[in-house]
Amino acid sequence: MRAERFVCLAGGVGAAKFLQGFVNVVPPEDVVVVVNTGDDMELHGLHISPDLDIILYTLAGIVEEVKGWGIRDDTFQCLSMLQRYGCETWFNLGDKDLATHVYRTKLLKDGFSLQEVTARLSQQLGLRETILPMTNDKFETRILTDRGEMHFQEYMVKYGMQRHVVGVKFEGDKQAKPCPEVLNAILHASGIIICPSNPIVSIGTILSVKGIREALRKTKAKVVSISPIIGGTAVKGPAAQLMLSLGMEVSAFSVANLYKDFVDFLILDKIDKNLKKRIETLGLQTVVTDTLMRTAEDKVRLAKVAFSCL
Amino acid sequence: MRAERFVCLAGGVGAAKFLQGFVNVVPPEDVVVVVNTGDDMELHGLHISPDLDIILYTLAGIVEEVKGWGIRDDTFQCLSMLQRYGCETWFNLGDKDLATHVYRTKLLKDGFSLQEVTARLSQQLGLRETILPMTNDKFETRILTDRGEMHFQEYMVKYGMQRHVVGVKFEGDKQAKPCPEVLNAILHASGIIICPSNPIVSIGTILSVKGIREALRKTKAKVVSISPIIGGTAVKGPAAQLMLSLGMEVSAFSVANLYKDFVDFLILDKIDKNLKKRIETLGLQTVVTDTLMRTAEDKVRLAKVAFSCL
Repeated sequence: MRAERFVCLAGGVGAAKFLQGFVNVVPPEDVVVVVNTGDDMELHGLHISPDLDIILYTLAGIVEEVKGWGIRDDTFQCLSMLQRYGCETWFNLGDKDLATHVYRTKLLKDGFSLQEVTARLSQQLGLRETILPMTNDKFETRILTDRGEMHFQEYMVKYGMQRHVVGVKFEGDKQAKPCPEVLNAILHASGIIICPSNPIVSIGTILSVKGIREALRKTKAKVVSISPIIGGTAVKGPAAQLMLSLGMEVSAFSVANLYKDFVDFLILDKIDKNLKKRIETLGLQTVVTDTLMRTAEDKVRLAKVAFSCL
Repeated sequence: MRAERFVCLAGGVGAAKFLQGFVNVVPPEDVVVVVNTGDDMELHGLHISPDLDIILYTLAGIVEEVKGWGIRDDTFQCLSMLQRYGCETWFNLGDKDLATHVYRTKLLKDGFSLQEVTARLSQQLGLRETILPMTNDKFETRILTDRGEMHFQEYMVKYGMQRHVVGVKFEGDKQAKPCPEVLNAILHASGIIICPSNPIVSIGTILSVKGIREALRKTKAKVVSISPIIGGTAVKGPAAQLMLSLGMEVSAFSVANLYKDFVDFLILDKIDKNLKKRIETLGLQTVVTDTLMRTAEDKVRLAKVAFSCL
């Protein structure tokens, strides 16, 4: 085992951007990323892991940077043909991207765990980081809306978040075990980063897996989180809507409140500096800085700030 | 049931070309095509039916005409990504083509039979013909070579027919049952065409499925075959090599000899007119004509000759 090991809890695009910066601050070999798999789904008979793919593609340098997901310069020929066959095509599947799902599905069918599959994909893509799914077990984030319950991806992609959310449910949180390495990595980490991801359905999902929250409370490593909520709204995705629907104030304060039992530092944006004092009443230390990641430099700068807290 | 019903036994490219002509001679709704599935295989966890796809794509008017297989204007992005993942990529899979395999695999997994899946694909592609796999059961054509036994597609595509063949084996011929409609269609056909396909591993494979050869012997319909061997060689594919390896003369005479127990007519090419008398000694009638199908007109003309024998 390496002497230094930094564990990062990650959702999709926001986390991936942060990690791009972070691996410029610490050696990629020292980074363990624990990724949300609550958004995983089966579509066209293929196992799709949206957040794992975003992290893999981003760290491999092949992500479509504008959207933040999918593979650069991809085409959509297979999807257009699936449409001709009358299949649902609301979930965008690029032709290159599809190779990941086909290969993953094949390996899972052959009996490999999601973690083993992820390790193999990482290796083939030339990653030096360790990417771990939060669990190898079946786990599904369900969104309860006024028009019925649905998979998170249906809510977000199929219906474009145009549903009134009344709750969030994690199917599998009673049975699912974290990946074998996850708890140990957290307990013996040199430092832990809670990436700027959705606190309800990305980080919240990871925290709902048995033992993970407890390990975060127990670890001696510093735990640093970056608020994904800036100026009362989420940079990307449905974090604001979900927080609102659960009766929360949409702010970095709520993020701090959700993490207060295990987080040492919250990094919040300058625009939210008025929340500093209030957050500190929760027992957290704060760092106020620019948290919006537009350029490669932004990402490295933010990662340096996070690293300085560890 | 329609009053008229023409049953065609088919392999891949040669059969597909003939059928393009035949559906200009009889209404497509009256055509039942029984297709070889001995070349089916699982690759990347996907169920691939090479001959079914060639027939479907050709009759749907979307086939890549130059090669005779695959979909026109397809791209190979997924395959290039599968290669990056270290997967075997000797079998060309276009991105559009892949949709067929993904969708078929999904439906098979959902419990539909290959026949039901084929019917659904046919319908979505707008086909009016009835396309039947020869069997819904597992069936595999194995090629025995001096360097080991292999799947037919490995022999043909992976090794480019560069192996010395010592035999052919049908795995599944003891158990596999023909598709429910096949025997009835043959017994009650208005006419039967044995398409110009490989007599060993396309037509021979179909004939090895229990009951099919017997039904062809019993039916009162005329059975007309078109020799795929022209001037001592096959127009496409490994028919010549396979016949040689099995100790046969590579000629229309051998084709006649393989079919003599159930075929009424053999259509042979002008170049082989010297074989006419010899073939007739086997008890078959013959028609000598141009059998090479280069243009749409060639296909219709040959189909008209075949139809005139029924």
